[in-house]
Amino acid sequence: MPQTPHVERHFTAGERVRDVVIGMSDGLTVPFALAAGLSGAVSSTSIIVTAGLAEIAAGSIAMGLGGYLAARSDAEHYASERVREETEVREKPAIEADEVTEVFRAYGLTAEESAPVVEALRKRPEAWVEFMMRFELGLEKPDPRRALTSALTIAGAYIAGGFIPLAPYLLLSTAPAALLLSVVVTLVALALFGYVKGTFTGASPVRGALQTALIGGLAAAAAFGIARAIS
Amino acid sequence: MPQTPHVERHFTAGERVRDVVIGMSDGLTVPFALAAGLSGAVSSTSIIVTAGLAEIAAGSIAMGLGGYLAARSDAEHYASERVREETEVREKPAIEADEVTEVFRAYGLTAEESAPVVEALRKRPEAWVEFMMRFELGLEKPDPRRALTSALTIAGAYIAGGFIPLAPYLLLSTAPAALLLSVVVTLVALALFGYVKGTFTGASPVRGALQTALIGGLAAAAAFGIARAIS
Repeated sequence: MPQTPHVERHFTAGERVRDVVIGMSDGLTVPFALAAGLSGAVSSTSIIVTAGLAEIAAGSIAMGLGGYLAARSDAEHYASERVREETEVREKPAIEADEVTEVFRAYGLTAEESAPVVEALRKRPEAWVEFMMRFELGLEKPDPRRALTSALTIAGAYIAGGFIPLAPYLLLSTAPAALLLSVVVTLVALALFGYVKGTFTGASPVRGALQTALIGGLAAAAAFGIARAIS
Repeated sequence: MPQTPHVERHFTAGERVRDVVIGMSDGLTVPFALAAGLSGAVSSTSIIVTAGLAEIAAGSIAMGLGGYLAARSDAEHYASERVREETEVREKPAIEADEVTEVFRAYGLTAEESAPVVEALRKRPEAWVEFMMRFELGLEKPDPRRALTSALTIAGAYIAGGFIPLAPYLLLSTAPAALLLSVVVTLVALALFGYVKGTFTGASPVRGALQTALIGGLAAAAAFGIARAIS
C-alpha cells in the first residue's frame, strides 16, 4: 500500500497500541469493579482475591482467544473475498470494469476521466484484484502473524492491568482498607493509562485520563451498589 | 461510497451484528467462568450470585461506555485528519497530486495512466479530500449515531448473555449442582450463539459453534482451576 512515512508509522504503532489499550483498559476496569463490588458484600479479602484471580484468568482467556479467532476469521474472510474477486475479474471483466468506473463516479469523475485507469487495470489482472479488494470492498490485507501477536498482547495487557486493583487485597486482610487503597491506586493507574493512551492515539491526554478514570469509577460504583443491595 | 447492493447489506448488518457478538460473547463467557471458578472455592451460591451480578454490571459498563468513547474518538480522529487533508489539498495541491499518483503506482499504473484521474480530482477539491481520506489514509466516514447505538447494543448483549450462566445459581442453593447446570446451559448457549454468529459472518456455522464453546470452556476451566488451587 502506498503510504507516506508518517501514515505507515501511525498505523503500525496503532495496531499494537490498540491491542494493549483493549486488554489493559478492561483488565484495569473489570477486576477493579468486581473487587470493589465484593467489598460491599463480604469483609474478608480471601474470597475477593479468589474471585479477582478467577476473573483475570477468565477475562484474559476470553479476550485473548477471542481476539485470536477474530483475527483469524478476518484473514479467512479476506481470502474468500479475494478468490471471488479473482473469479469475477477473470470471468466477467466487463462488469468489473463498470464497477471501477462506479468507484470513481462516486467522486464526481466521469466515465471518460476514469477510462485510462480502468483500461490500465484491465491489463494487469493481479493489480486489478488488489484494487477491487481495497477500493470496492474496503478490505485491508491482514497480516498473517497478527492473530497470535494480537492474542498474546491483549491477554498480557489484561493480566498486567488486573493485578493493579487486586494487589491491595493480596496485601491487606480487611476488605474496607483494601478497597480504599485499591480505589486510590486504580484511579491513578487508570488516569495515567488514559493519559498515555491519549498521547498515542492523538486525542487529548487530559481528556483521555478523565475518560478512563470515569469508566473505571462508574463500573466500580455500579458493582459496589449492586453487591451491597443484594447482600 | 460506491458499493454493490450485496456489499452494502453485508456491511450494514456487519456493524450491528459485530456489536452483539462483542457484547454477548464476553457476557456469556466471563460471568460463566467467574461463577464456575468461585464454585471451586465456595459452597454457597449467594456469594457467587453477588459476584456474578457485580461482574455483569462492571463488564457491561466497561464494554458499553468503552465502546461509546472509542466510537467517539474514531469520529474525532476522522474529523481532524479531514481538516488536515483539506488544508493540504488547498495549500500544497502539487504534493497531494503526487500522492494520488503514488496510490495508483502501487497498483502498477504509470503516472501517464493515472494523470487523467489526478487532473479530474484537482478540479473537484471536495471529492479530492474524500478520495484521499479513503484511498490514502484508509479511513471510513464514521456514522455519527453509531457511538450511542453501539454502546447500548454491546452493554445490552453483555447483560443478556451474562444472565444465562448465572440463572442456575439464582435458582439452586448449592454451588456444585448450580455449576453443573450452568456448564450445560452455557455450553449449549455458546454453541448456539457461535452457530448463529457463523451464519451471519459467513464463516462455517459448525466451526463457529465449536470455537465459542471452546473459548467459554477453557476460560471456565482455567478460572475453576485457579480458584480451587488458591482456596
